[in-house]
Amino acid sequence: MAEAAQKAGAIATAIAELKEHFGGRLSEVMAVRERFGKDESFHPSAPPDAVITPHSTEEVSAIVRTCARHQVPVIPYGTGTALEGQVAALQGGISINLQEMNQVVEVHAEDLDVVVQPGVTRKQLNNHLHNSGLFFPIDPGADASIGGMTACRASGTNAVRYGTMRENVLALTVVLADGRVIRTARRARKSAAGYDLTRLFVGSEGTLGVITEVTLRLYGIPEAISSAVCTFPDVDSAVNTVIATIQYGVPVARIELLDEVQIDAINRYSKTDLALAPTLFLEFHGTEQGVEEQAGIVQELAAESGGSDFQWSANTEERNRLWQARHDAAYACKALQPDGQIWATDVCVPISRLAECIRETQRDIRDSNLVAPIVGHVGDGNFHLCLLVGKDDAAEHQRAQELHERMVMRALAMGGTCTGEHGVGYGKMDFLVAEHGEAVSVMRSIKQALDPDNIMNPGKIVRV
Amino acid sequence: MAEAAQKAGAIATAIAELKEHFGGRLSEVMAVRERFGKDESFHPSAPPDAVITPHSTEEVSAIVRTCARHQVPVIPYGTGTALEGQVAALQGGISINLQEMNQVVEVHAEDLDVVVQPGVTRKQLNNHLHNSGLFFPIDPGADASIGGMTACRASGTNAVRYGTMRENVLALTVVLADGRVIRTARRARKSAAGYDLTRLFVGSEGTLGVITEVTLRLYGIPEAISSAVCTFPDVDSAVNTVIATIQYGVPVARIELLDEVQIDAINRYSKTDLALAPTLFLEFHGTEQGVEEQAGIVQELAAESGGSDFQWSANTEERNRLWQARHDAAYACKALQPDGQIWATDVCVPISRLAECIRETQRDIRDSNLVAPIVGHVGDGNFHLCLLVGKDDAAEHQRAQELHERMVMRALAMGGTCTGEHGVGYGKMDFLVAEHGEAVSVMRSIKQALDPDNIMNPGKIVRV
Repeated sequence: MAEAAQKAGAIATAIAELKEHFGGRLSEVMAVRERFGKDESFHPSAPPDAVITPHSTEEVSAIVRTCARHQVPVIPYGTGTALEGQVAALQGGISINLQEMNQVVEVHAEDLDVVVQPGVTRKQLNNHLHNSGLFFPIDPGADASIGGMTACRASGTNAVRYGTMRENVLALTVVLADGRVIRTARRARKSAAGYDLTRLFVGSEGTLGVITEVTLRLYGIPEAISSAVCTFPDVDSAVNTVIATIQYGVPVARIELLDEVQIDAINRYSKTDLALAPTLFLEFHGTEQGVEEQAGIVQELAAESGGSDFQWSANTEERNRLWQARHDAAYACKALQPDGQIWATDVCVPISRLAECIRETQRDIRDSNLVAPIVGHVGDGNFHLCLLVGKDDAAEHQRAQELHERMVMRALAMGGTCTGEHGVGYGKMDFLVAEHGEAVSVMRSIKQALDPDNIMNPGKIVRV
Repeated sequence: MAEAAQKAGAIATAIAELKEHFGGRLSEVMAVRERFGKDESFHPSAPPDAVITPHSTEEVSAIVRTCARHQVPVIPYGTGTALEGQVAALQGGISINLQEMNQVVEVHAEDLDVVVQPGVTRKQLNNHLHNSGLFFPIDPGADASIGGMTACRASGTNAVRYGTMRENVLALTVVLADGRVIRTARRARKSAAGYDLTRLFVGSEGTLGVITEVTLRLYGIPEAISSAVCTFPDVDSAVNTVIATIQYGVPVARIELLDEVQIDAINRYSKTDLALAPTLFLEFHGTEQGVEEQAGIVQELAAESGGSDFQWSANTEERNRLWQARHDAAYACKALQPDGQIWATDVCVPISRLAECIRETQRDIRDSNLVAPIVGHVGDGNFHLCLLVGKDDAAEHQRAQELHERMVMRALAMGGTCTGEHGVGYGKMDFLVAEHGEAVSVMRSIKQALDPDNIMNPGKIVRV
């Protein structure tokens, strides 16, 4: 009781101090706090005590210094599109809203890199680059902020060709738990100079520091882009086509699998009549000659695995038509149960086990009497489950939870990971222990070394 | 004095305990110790007190546990091909010779990955893979061990296409400073599950733990490989060709620059009559049609930048002939001053500054009255200086040291790094501070958290 009062007093004092500097950029309005304590997942909102909107690294440092002095939690906020409760203020504290730190600082066209503030979103960045001939490829679906994508090690549809945030962040500016500011690396494309602090902060979900500037790799916009769609008799033959494609060395830019349940949902939502079968959606980047050759090779490989109705186009309109179904996937899921909740989760396994993992999961979904379309970034062995759960249906929620747990443990047993791209937040902390075992104690040692008072997004990734 | 005696006593006790288990696999012979305390650099040997050759992770763990109990330093040893004194036993202790942990444990052809013990060398691995249609691309020149390449974040000629060890290690087994064993990740190609411990140990040079198993990405052997060579009027035009090639998106597999001093050295060594001009050596991987297209594009781009005498071949013999000069570069350097010492060093800068950095360095070499051929992995902005220094010529050594320092500080001022691929060891610790500033204190915090008694390869990377 005394402890709670002391904590509340510390937070009140910190807020009072911060108000002096930030004035109207500090909000204690409950509706605002509720919004900043909630991401796009089924996890409930855990509102912070206040939301502050800084405009510079120095201001973030000032916030963290004040919070450190009073041992008040700090939770960075990008766009709130996370999926494992990463922005929830589980122990109260200050949400740092980075949305107004949204400047593209420097484009280095010759070096194929760009320096951005963390609140820049990926679409904003690509709009900014529009006339440069360059683009930033990572596409997690949502128009997330670059800071959030970095903190959560985002990836998405074209990671199979361009890698994830892990491969595409060159350097970071980070405000540490005591307010000190570091730069993790220079702009050189590679370096053997010391511990890889960049990669340590990529995926740390705000638990080690606040990212205030990101240097990213860029790519030349390909001369030609083409798309293809192909249906398969079963998941195995689709996945075999993916394996053959990658072994052949076809530099496919996207290769997405939708299962028959997802296709069915799209047919209902978009009034299409796609064949109810596992379907691969592909995209090729290269020269005009190159994308044609790539598509030709994949068409042959698909045919060898039993694929049929291979449709291909390099024409923009036709490409968009072919991929429309894939783009509609998320909306189609939501439409299946408009009043329900969506429990979005993902795992990633070695691709040799992917078909088996999906098949067993599909059987489990049927046995659990649940509806859960599957969409996979199959080139990486990564797939998503979109579990539909009635809003106040405790029994269904329980079945969903059990199914989810079995899916994650199945992925781990196959040499996979509990999350390919959604992160840990506080939703997957137990699975992190199941996956990493003793290595979690190393993560904890690092957390304690860099954030001894546990004020940086506490209650996420590792328990302290 | 008392401290030194105590330390000697602790080492003697540890060795006595370890002898019981390892018998003939523990050596105290001075010639052996000398060899294990020396890498391929100009840094003098710092022999360990004993060399032990373990055969398993459990045996490595047993060695580290014993050393931890007596606070005796532990220095992992792969092939001794490091270049910044990484294997020197600066404070004595036990060298762990990992050369007999040289099994390829599992090849997962469908997943394009392989699990190896750390003593497997890259050539051994590729020989093992010979009939699988797969290969491991990273090529730092020396036939280094995979463990050493991981620990030093190696890269080399084809990093421009395939990335460095940072991008190609999927998971590690590591013996920590107290003997505990962790696995840093699963075999999934991507993961958002917790802190990136894999990347933390990649490049940690044995200062955080001993790597005892490595899971690597593999690639399908390309259907076709072709090579090209082209000369340029100056370094600027060569580098401009590289920039244009990468911006165009040509997935060049290797793109190497040799300066006129290096070409001259090769002409002397190999009795060739190559034009004394900056020269690019290129390699293309892809389909037959693809490599032809790539070479055609680069030839055009080179011509636009003033390149001439573009020679191209997809024929194996002809390819080898074209690249022979590049392969002879290191021998040719040594032959320039057979009795001298070679001081090999590297920096890496954003590619927009590369030509300027090389030009200023060349001028500095001339002004310093030194001979120092330059070879660059220019696609990454990385280049090597091969400083030739008379063995007992203190004045020349001093000039070389000053030149070296100016080159590194020049690279840092251009947004580059003090080492692109050689690592820090104890040769570049001061430069690490110049490069990273406050971030070095974060590296130190991590070091202290994971190795509180500073027994893991002490005196390297960060001062504690």
